[in-house]
Amino acid sequence: MDSKKRNRRGFLKGAALAGFAAGEMRPAEGQALDVSSKKLDDLIAYGQRSRFVTSVRMPVAERHSPDEFGLTFHVLTPLQDSFGIITPNSLFYTATHRGSFVPDIDPREHRFMIHGMVDRPLIFTMDELKRFPYVSRIHFVECLGNRASASHKTVQQTHGLTSCAEWTGVPLSLLLKEAGVQNSASWIVAEGAEEVKGASSIPLAKAMDDCLVCYGQNGEPLRPQQGFPLRLIVPGFEGIYQIKYLRRVKVVDRYYMTYDDYGHITPDPKAAALTHQIGPKSVITFPSGGQQLPGPGFYEITGLAWSGAGAIRGVEVSADGGQSWKAAELRTPAHRMAHTRFGLHWKWDGKECVLMSRCTDELGTVQPTRADVARYWQEPIDKVRIRGADNSVQPWRVASDGSVHNGLA
Amino acid sequence: MDSKKRNRRGFLKGAALAGFAAGEMRPAEGQALDVSSKKLDDLIAYGQRSRFVTSVRMPVAERHSPDEFGLTFHVLTPLQDSFGIITPNSLFYTATHRGSFVPDIDPREHRFMIHGMVDRPLIFTMDELKRFPYVSRIHFVECLGNRASASHKTVQQTHGLTSCAEWTGVPLSLLLKEAGVQNSASWIVAEGAEEVKGASSIPLAKAMDDCLVCYGQNGEPLRPQQGFPLRLIVPGFEGIYQIKYLRRVKVVDRYYMTYDDYGHITPDPKAAALTHQIGPKSVITFPSGGQQLPGPGFYEITGLAWSGAGAIRGVEVSADGGQSWKAAELRTPAHRMAHTRFGLHWKWDGKECVLMSRCTDELGTVQPTRADVARYWQEPIDKVRIRGADNSVQPWRVASDGSVHNGLA
Repeated sequence: MDSKKRNRRGFLKGAALAGFAAGEMRPAEGQALDVSSKKLDDLIAYGQRSRFVTSVRMPVAERHSPDEFGLTFHVLTPLQDSFGIITPNSLFYTATHRGSFVPDIDPREHRFMIHGMVDRPLIFTMDELKRFPYVSRIHFVECLGNRASASHKTVQQTHGLTSCAEWTGVPLSLLLKEAGVQNSASWIVAEGAEEVKGASSIPLAKAMDDCLVCYGQNGEPLRPQQGFPLRLIVPGFEGIYQIKYLRRVKVVDRYYMTYDDYGHITPDPKAAALTHQIGPKSVITFPSGGQQLPGPGFYEITGLAWSGAGAIRGVEVSADGGQSWKAAELRTPAHRMAHTRFGLHWKWDGKECVLMSRCTDELGTVQPTRADVARYWQEPIDKVRIRGADNSVQPWRVASDGSVHNGLA
Repeated sequence: MDSKKRNRRGFLKGAALAGFAAGEMRPAEGQALDVSSKKLDDLIAYGQRSRFVTSVRMPVAERHSPDEFGLTFHVLTPLQDSFGIITPNSLFYTATHRGSFVPDIDPREHRFMIHGMVDRPLIFTMDELKRFPYVSRIHFVECLGNRASASHKTVQQTHGLTSCAEWTGVPLSLLLKEAGVQNSASWIVAEGAEEVKGASSIPLAKAMDDCLVCYGQNGEPLRPQQGFPLRLIVPGFEGIYQIKYLRRVKVVDRYYMTYDDYGHITPDPKAAALTHQIGPKSVITFPSGGQQLPGPGFYEITGLAWSGAGAIRGVEVSADGGQSWKAAELRTPAHRMAHTRFGLHWKWDGKECVLMSRCTDELGTVQPTRADVARYWQEPIDKVRIRGADNSVQPWRVASDGSVHNGLA
C-alpha cells in the first residue's frame, strides 16, 4: 500500500496538479476572500444560481433569433459545462416541430385518455393519475437532429440536443392493463395537446415494456418546455416519441404515418420501427471545441455515453485520432437508456492530437467512427452523408497552443 | 398471465381509479384545453417553471421573517410536493449557523488548502481541482435540527431539513494522498470561508473513505446557498459536517471542539464521533399533514427513506398506527446514504386511521417508533425528549373527512 501510495503520488507529481506551495497563499489566515453578500430574503422561496455561473442554452442556428421562431424550435443544452448525468431542468434541451408556442396548460383542466382497441376506454385527471403506483427512473432524451457538422465549433452545437433527467410517472403498461388491451392490437398512437397535435406511432410491445406517463422531472413537476403537465417517456427512442402535453393514447392494430414521422415516412412498419431507437453514442465534453488547455500536464478527460438499447458497458478513449484506445472509467452508475459519465486521467504532452471516445452498450454494439460509417456506405469520409440518427464518434483536435477544435472541420 | 392480468384489473376496479367513462370527455376531439401561450423568447437561455407550479421553501419558524435573520437561518424544502429522489437545487433546504449572509465568492479567487500533518501542504485553485479525476454520487444531506414536534402541521415543517442531490467532485482521499498524510494523523478539521469560519472535526478514516470535495450539484455548479464554489460532502453525516465554501482541510492528530460542535460538545472524541451519523429514517410525504383525500378508494402512499449507515434495504408501512406493517416497494434505486423513494398502493376505507413508515438499512438497523424511544429513555411517550438527531417514526392521522394531520399533535 505504501508503494501504491508512492506510485499514485509519483503519477500525479509534476503534473501541474500540485497547486502552489502552501506558503504562497493562506486563505485560513484572513486574506480578503470576496464574501460580499446578497440579501437573504431573495434566497428563501426559490433559490438562484451564483452570478458567476452564466451557462445558458442557445438556439440551434444563428438565424433562430428569439423572435423569429417558426415551426422549428430547437434549443441546445450547454454540455461543455455539464457535471454528472442530471441535466438541470432550466438547461434541458428543447425541440419541437409542433407549433411555435409552448402550451400554458392548467393541470386541473388537463385530461389523459386511453381509447381505441381496449375493453374499457378511460379518461384520467392529473389527480387520478397520481393515485396510481409510480416509479422514478433516469433516462436520456435525444433529438434525431442531434448531429455534428464541420461548421459546429462547440459540443453544445454538435451534441446539445440530448439531456438526461430523473423522470417520475406511472408505467404506461399499468394504465393499458387497466383499460384492457385487445388481443389484435399491435401499436399505439400517442398524441399531445399542442397546436399541431403532434403524434407518433409506437409498437405495443414497447408501450407495455418500459414507457412512463410522467408528471415529474428532477424532483419537481415537468417544465412547460418539457410537456407540463404530462409527457410520455419512451426510453431509448428518439425525442419525437417522447410526447409532450400528452393527452391521449389510442391503441391500434397497425402503424400510422403521422406528422411527426417526417424523419422516416414509410408505409413499412418494420422499416419505421428500426429507426426508433438511438444507437450507442458518446462524446467528450472536456476538452471540447472552444475550450483551452492552459498547458501540458494532467487533465481529466470527461464525457457522456448513452444508448437506446440499454446500459453502457464501457467507453474507450483515444488520444491519437483512433489509432489506439484506452478504457475509460465510468464515473456514475450506468442506468439503462441514461447518460453515463465517463472519465480518463490523461497526460497531455503539449503536441497536437485528436481526442475521441467510443462506447459499447449492453448488447455489445460499438459506436462507429465516421470512417466506419463511410466504409459502410462506400463514400469518402469527408463527404459521408449521415442517414437517420448520427451516432458516429466525435473527434476533438487539441492544437499545440492548447486550443481545442472540432475534428470534423 | 391472463389470470394475473384479471387479478390486477380486479384489484384496481372500483377503486375510483378508472376515471370517467370515455364518453364524458374527449380531449382528442377538440374541447378547449387551455393552451394559451407564452412567448418563446423568455424560454431560451434558462427555462422557468409553469405558473401553475408554486411550491416554495419556507423559513423554519414564523418568527424568522425574511429581514430578521440572525445567526440561525434555516429554510425548509417542500417535501410534500417532491417526486423521486432528486431535490431541485432551487428548493434544496438551507441551514447555516455561520453568519447571516451567503458568501458571494468569485470562483477564480477561491482557494482550497490541505495542510497540517501532511508531507506536502497544497493549495488548489478551482481550475486545478477540476483537473483531478472526479465522481458523481447521489447523497442526502440532513440537518441535526430536522425534528418533528406536535406544533408542526406539514411534512415540510416536520422533515423539511433534508434534501438529496447528485454531487460531483474529487474524492478527498485522492487529494489527501497527494498531500501525503502522516502516520500519526487521526482526524481532519474542515473549514469554510463564511463570516464565522465554521469548522468541523471529522475522523480521518471517514475522510479517506467516501468524502467528496464537490463543485457540482444536480448537473450544474453548486448554488451559493449550498457552498458555491466548493463544498465538502461527508456522506451520511449530519449537515453541519458538509462544509460549505470549503477553503481548508487541516490534518490533525486529535478531535477539536469547534464552534459548530454546538450539538455535541464533549472532550471525548469517541462520544463526539458517535453522534456524527444520521440514523435510519423515513417519512410519508403523501398523504401527509395538511393534505386532503377526496374520498375512500385507492391511493399511492409515497415517501422517502434514508440512512447515514448505507443503503435502505426495506421500508414498511402501517395503516393502523403501528399495530401491523406491510412491506412497501422501493420506487427508485437504493443508493448508499441517499434518499430512496418508497410506495405502497393502499385502499382507504374512509375510516380514521394513522399512517406510519419505518425503514431498515443495510446494517439491519430499524428506525424506531416514538414508543421505542420512550421505552428506551423510560419517559412517557407524549413527553419523551429527543436526544441528538430525531429519526423516530412520523405518524400521520387521516380523519374520516379525508383531512390529514400530524399524529404527534
